[in-house]
Amino acid sequence: MNKIKPRTLSGFMELLPPDQVCFDTMMLNLRKSFSLYGFTPLDTPLMEASEILLAKGGGETEKQIYTLRKGDNDLAVRYELTASLAKYAALYYNDLTFPLRRYEIGKVYRGERAQRGRFREFYQADIDIIGDGSLDLMNEAEIPGVIYKSLTSLGLKRFIIKINNRKILNGFFEILGINELSTEVMRVVDKLDKIGEKKLSETLIDALGLTQTQVDGLLGFITNKTEPFGALDLYKGKNETFDQGTEEIITLRKYLSDLGVPETHYKIDLSIARGLDYYTGTVYETYLTDYPEVGAICSGGRYDNLAEHYTDRKMPGVGLSIGLTRLFYILQEQGLLNDSLLTAPADVLIIPMTEECSHAVKLATTMRESGLRVQIYSENKKFKNKISYADKLGIPFVVFLGEDEISKGLIKVKDMATGEQTIASYGILTAGILDKIKTQRKGEPVKEK
Amino acid sequence: MNKIKPRTLSGFMELLPPDQVCFDTMMLNLRKSFSLYGFTPLDTPLMEASEILLAKGGGETEKQIYTLRKGDNDLAVRYELTASLAKYAALYYNDLTFPLRRYEIGKVYRGERAQRGRFREFYQADIDIIGDGSLDLMNEAEIPGVIYKSLTSLGLKRFIIKINNRKILNGFFEILGINELSTEVMRVVDKLDKIGEKKLSETLIDALGLTQTQVDGLLGFITNKTEPFGALDLYKGKNETFDQGTEEIITLRKYLSDLGVPETHYKIDLSIARGLDYYTGTVYETYLTDYPEVGAICSGGRYDNLAEHYTDRKMPGVGLSIGLTRLFYILQEQGLLNDSLLTAPADVLIIPMTEECSHAVKLATTMRESGLRVQIYSENKKFKNKISYADKLGIPFVVFLGEDEISKGLIKVKDMATGEQTIASYGILTAGILDKIKTQRKGEPVKEK
Repeated sequence: MNKIKPRTLSGFMELLPPDQVCFDTMMLNLRKSFSLYGFTPLDTPLMEASEILLAKGGGETEKQIYTLRKGDNDLAVRYELTASLAKYAALYYNDLTFPLRRYEIGKVYRGERAQRGRFREFYQADIDIIGDGSLDLMNEAEIPGVIYKSLTSLGLKRFIIKINNRKILNGFFEILGINELSTEVMRVVDKLDKIGEKKLSETLIDALGLTQTQVDGLLGFITNKTEPFGALDLYKGKNETFDQGTEEIITLRKYLSDLGVPETHYKIDLSIARGLDYYTGTVYETYLTDYPEVGAICSGGRYDNLAEHYTDRKMPGVGLSIGLTRLFYILQEQGLLNDSLLTAPADVLIIPMTEECSHAVKLATTMRESGLRVQIYSENKKFKNKISYADKLGIPFVVFLGEDEISKGLIKVKDMATGEQTIASYGILTAGILDKIKTQRKGEPVKEK
Repeated sequence: MNKIKPRTLSGFMELLPPDQVCFDTMMLNLRKSFSLYGFTPLDTPLMEASEILLAKGGGETEKQIYTLRKGDNDLAVRYELTASLAKYAALYYNDLTFPLRRYEIGKVYRGERAQRGRFREFYQADIDIIGDGSLDLMNEAEIPGVIYKSLTSLGLKRFIIKINNRKILNGFFEILGINELSTEVMRVVDKLDKIGEKKLSETLIDALGLTQTQVDGLLGFITNKTEPFGALDLYKGKNETFDQGTEEIITLRKYLSDLGVPETHYKIDLSIARGLDYYTGTVYETYLTDYPEVGAICSGGRYDNLAEHYTDRKMPGVGLSIGLTRLFYILQEQGLLNDSLLTAPADVLIIPMTEECSHAVKLATTMRESGLRVQIYSENKKFKNKISYADKLGIPFVVFLGEDEISKGLIKVKDMATGEQTIASYGILTAGILDKIKTQRKGEPVKEK
């Protein structure tokens, strides 16, 4: 038979078992964190009619979307989760209760040219709160709480949530008299960290025609990062939108400590903009403190019309997206995955030392009933290979069951970490293993040095 | 703006929040059950090079596969999980430890014409044990244990695991002298339940040219369902393969009670065949006792060469697949989903009765830290609407926080199920709610009547 070379497509992350367990633990911890804030899980189809996915329209995205060759349908594969949510909220409007708090962790697809660290298939973990007609500011305040809880649940400690409000920026642009250029200006401002203040000034003046005074005002405002409330005070009372945004960010900030977000982990940053057209209120970007160069690991904000392509009904929302595959890739690259996480497929390996395995099987059944993950090693191999199997997989406990133990109603257990061997009754050893395993299972997927 | 009609493609299951929670609970319970048997999770890409997915080749399947229009790659979307596993085992052979026990719960795609109860996007939950060169019979014995544990973890009680061994059938066909027709004969035999014995006999004689004696022998053998070991005894010693299969099924059966599978839940059934070419040893089909007409809800068996398209290395395995979306659809149709399962997005809804919400937010934070899922209702609505929000979502507890309670350090809680209202200190009420919620969370997704 002609053989095929096995391969996985470039840009598709495929993990070995231990890394997969780590990735799954990340997803599980995120699900738990989202749940604590009252978000319900959704799982929308990966394929939709193209018109649904392209409703928002949009240049680059449209080029990257995968479409399908099948039958007479115009099908495409989702490239993010928001389009599906918009359709869902409009389609099931009558069956849903608003505000709707939902999360979805799912794969999305982008037909990009694959590069190192860029993925064609990747997980996004999205949370959104969708209102019907209106949505209280409290929802915007809660988002940093969810971010803080979610990221710390992964084991991350060193990150910073940057917060701004688009009303402040829009109002400020009106004050400066550059509101008609706001989209273009913000696109340039978004690059501040990359290009620096000098280049930023040049671009604003040369390409967009701003005056030196306007540029000075703008830079003074957005780079005033240490004490943004000073900058806010300076322009107070000059513009209604600006004042409203300022008031919102003050209210929001007040709740952050009540939500358990420490001052070390957030920052009001007036330079955060996030694509001018979509967001209308609070915006968020979260960075790893030690790796700012990888960009925001999660971001989002408040928007006014989720489902405008489907309905005249106003559905304002606030949401957030974590690029999970990319985050995992960075953590792996930086050696930040917790290598003491229990990633073995089993807690216990039972090695029967007799021809007849009934006792081994019964023991496995009892141990499984108590919640232990158990494998029985029954392959016809040398003893050395059997032990080596447990060792390679990192299975923490090996049970040997020979005639001698069986006749006495005992089991012999080897703790693979310490090498220590213990002989005791079934019940006592099972309880002892369960106890130790519970501690080992508590590990978080990330361990910062 | 021109509006688009929101729609989900036919054949794509999309669930409302309570049903989604139920479906997610099914997946979580399966993951836990698979883990108890030492299976590790994998998550392979949904897209692969077409040659990978079509390596096995095959008529109907090839017609149903979705391929993608993008760039110069020949990409396709997986229609089952086994092809991806075969590639994975061959590609990462050197990094894996065998036997490899893996499970994968993932979406697969088939471009069929959509019909009621047939899906174009659906979940499969697969488990497989892959050996390197050889694989002990014990692995085949353990599979019914996993099935039993998995299905009961969903809350299913009335199902039957039918077990056969392909060596018995192959040997028996040799004894009857019809081994050259075995594929065709088995395809007809697979329809026994549907077409009945009379029509089966006619087809075997008219279409396949069997003699009346051969048909009588065959029917006597495969329909001897009440005491299959009588039928096995009858042909003992006449064919080596047959005898080997008989021995295997006797050994396997011996371990079933040790594995905790009750006699009421399995049956040796000599008519179970499952596509003659692929399987080589034990085969399994599981039926819902009360709904045999929906067909097998999970099935699988032993095979000899998982990765033959990639390597000369022999990788025997045994596996099983559960058609999860279809199973959920049937359970939903038959009204077997547990409607007392806690599907609300939160355990507690906090309704602040004051302008200033700091106390409400702090209470939410404390409750979340204790493991409760909490929403704060902060929309500007009438009191009636706030209560109705909790009611519609099935949130079991509502906390009212007014000036009076705050000043006394108390909270007022309403148990939505009983209508009972309690006032007590934060700590006591949180503990009380946690206690009740733990019981409610224990529900299984399925509840048979």
